[in-house]
Amino acid sequence: GRLSGTELRTTILLSGYHSESKAKEYKHVCKRACQRAVDRLKAGALAVEAVTAALVELEDSPFTNAGMGSNLNLSGGIECDASIMDGKSLHYGAVGAISGIKNPVLVANRLLSEAQRGKLSAGRIPPCFLVGRGAHDWAVSHGIPPCPSEKMATKFSLSAYKRNKRKMELAEKLDTGHNQTKKRRQSCENENGSGCLDTVGAVVVDLEGNVAAAVSSGGLAMKHPGRVGQAAHYGCGCWAENTCNMNPYSTAVSTSGCGEHLIRTMLARECSTAMQSEDAHQALLEAMQNKFISSPFLASEDRVLGGVIVLRCCRCVEAPPSQNIQGILVEFLWSHTTESMCVGYMSAQDSKAKTHISRLPPGTVPGQCLAIEGGVCRLSVVE
Amino acid sequence: GRLSGTELRTTILLSGYHSESKAKEYKHVCKRACQRAVDRLKAGALAVEAVTAALVELEDSPFTNAGMGSNLNLSGGIECDASIMDGKSLHYGAVGAISGIKNPVLVANRLLSEAQRGKLSAGRIPPCFLVGRGAHDWAVSHGIPPCPSEKMATKFSLSAYKRNKRKMELAEKLDTGHNQTKKRRQSCENENGSGCLDTVGAVVVDLEGNVAAAVSSGGLAMKHPGRVGQAAHYGCGCWAENTCNMNPYSTAVSTSGCGEHLIRTMLARECSTAMQSEDAHQALLEAMQNKFISSPFLASEDRVLGGVIVLRCCRCVEAPPSQNIQGILVEFLWSHTTESMCVGYMSAQDSKAKTHISRLPPGTVPGQCLAIEGGVCRLSVVE
Repeated sequence: GRLSGTELRTTILLSGYHSESKAKEYKHVCKRACQRAVDRLKAGALAVEAVTAALVELEDSPFTNAGMGSNLNLSGGIECDASIMDGKSLHYGAVGAISGIKNPVLVANRLLSEAQRGKLSAGRIPPCFLVGRGAHDWAVSHGIPPCPSEKMATKFSLSAYKRNKRKMELAEKLDTGHNQTKKRRQSCENENGSGCLDTVGAVVVDLEGNVAAAVSSGGLAMKHPGRVGQAAHYGCGCWAENTCNMNPYSTAVSTSGCGEHLIRTMLARECSTAMQSEDAHQALLEAMQNKFISSPFLASEDRVLGGVIVLRCCRCVEAPPSQNIQGILVEFLWSHTTESMCVGYMSAQDSKAKTHISRLPPGTVPGQCLAIEGGVCRLSVVE
Repeated sequence: GRLSGTELRTTILLSGYHSESKAKEYKHVCKRACQRAVDRLKAGALAVEAVTAALVELEDSPFTNAGMGSNLNLSGGIECDASIMDGKSLHYGAVGAISGIKNPVLVANRLLSEAQRGKLSAGRIPPCFLVGRGAHDWAVSHGIPPCPSEKMATKFSLSAYKRNKRKMELAEKLDTGHNQTKKRRQSCENENGSGCLDTVGAVVVDLEGNVAAAVSSGGLAMKHPGRVGQAAHYGCGCWAENTCNMNPYSTAVSTSGCGEHLIRTMLARECSTAMQSEDAHQALLEAMQNKFISSPFLASEDRVLGGVIVLRCCRCVEAPPSQNIQGILVEFLWSHTTESMCVGYMSAQDSKAKTHISRLPPGTVPGQCLAIEGGVCRLSVVE
């Protein structure tokens, strides 16, 4: 049955190594994104629409590495990845390495909704994943306005680009004359101190109990043009599945961090699968430990950087069935191996969102240790 | 220990609705591809290299929808997808919507080997997935020669494009004046009679018992530019995992068919996971039935089109341990819901490859029923 008058919970993720100076802005944009999603939910929107609204807000912030303010790539351009998944229909839409579109998540969302409408003329199957120039042109032909790339760069992203460029040139100059192959392996770690990993994502449960997840990213700073990260990769950037015969829980997951690590471990889907076991906290802890930090797929990596936000819910009986009151148990958790991750959350009954900057315990090593936190809330539903 | 003097098995897949007139050519190219891979294996190559050699042969054939002779997209261009996975390192490389490269699998393979070498200068993480123009430029800068797109079109692919274009225009003309939204859903199915789904793939086990899988595709005919199909999608187009603590079997899988269906069901990885249970034939049958034809991810689809080739192997004791003779049990299976699929296979002791055109049983409906076949062979290995 349709739930009404219930609390709704929206969780928003912002992750990565961020400078202290940006903490305040991160919290603010998280709050606004939560508010946007809750406003939509209160107006009767489904989870997919609400999660899209949250992502648009996150992309529009010049402080996040998504949409406006995205990292610049090796040739100084901006190419974004985004994807969205609807737990109800299990449909999925994604764009990779798209340029000149202010809100990549709107294109992903449009691909999802077009695919839900069924076949194109002459029986052609609609695409669920578009990249590059073709993705841009598809978006524009579907009414999404283009935006000049130079408008999407910020003072901050441009100065980070110049700094990174100098650093690369220096590293490559040092290599010349040495054994290049060896040298490039030993060259110092990219500090990733300039917002490299600040992908954004959100997970939402709506009035009807449907879940949705979405994610958006400008990708790694100085990435090769055409590089596509986890944010556009099915099963890697986000996952959402409503409860069904086989799954007692509805789950929604968004991931953030180093794209290649998140792709090769298929972290979003792995976490979603893990969340079907009873103890959510334990399940997420084990998934992050065994399927990410110690994953056989990343055996050669010494530091595995990423974070997830997870939402799961199930119905539960709260009062005698005669009273016709059902409960919905919502658990939301986050975990990360990055130094810090900014998280915000809000339910429809909250007057404003809560935000939190989660940090690794002091003395632990990023990429080898993890932080995990979360909350539970029991929502009453009058049928 | 290193195996020597053993039989080696190479399985090559060619799948899809193909016209009878092409059956002979399909079998020929399958044979040549098997031979290429086996030649490399005999020369001591690892599985990844052998599977790449097989794919190059398949791409070079003008009869397959991969590399040379790929389907044309909506604007008459050629954009290819390809990926490769190494069961030993679990590394993966993929290109999507790449133009102007004769052998996309060589780019995927190069991405894989570059990623295995570790970080780039200034600690940058090498990409595992590149698309579009950026992928093309990366390939050329890594010594892979460009090839003008017009050279990759064939008489056959050009005439199919003209035919499809007329058909689309007709379908859209019929729509005008009617309720477009409704009409486009009802318009007749694309017969896919012109090689639309003839993706190619291969799975290989090498001298040391390592597995590898690769896949390459020109994508659906008349696809939107920028559309990326399963052949470039991690977990969807191919999968390869050597045996490890958790997995008793080494498995390699390649898929072919309708990209969107194969993506949303993550069919390659699902089949690989299924193949860890004891009865290979039963496991594949159940995977194709439950994770593909009846998948909740494709609930709205009435016809689910695809095929897989699967290879799995494990060591087994054949003789008293004192004789130091070990066996390796290799099972290879194929299954498809398309009307037909062309398969070839060969071991290093065979003088030539065997080929087979597998068909659905008479009277069954493509996309709703499946065919499944396969073989087992026990190879003796003297340590």
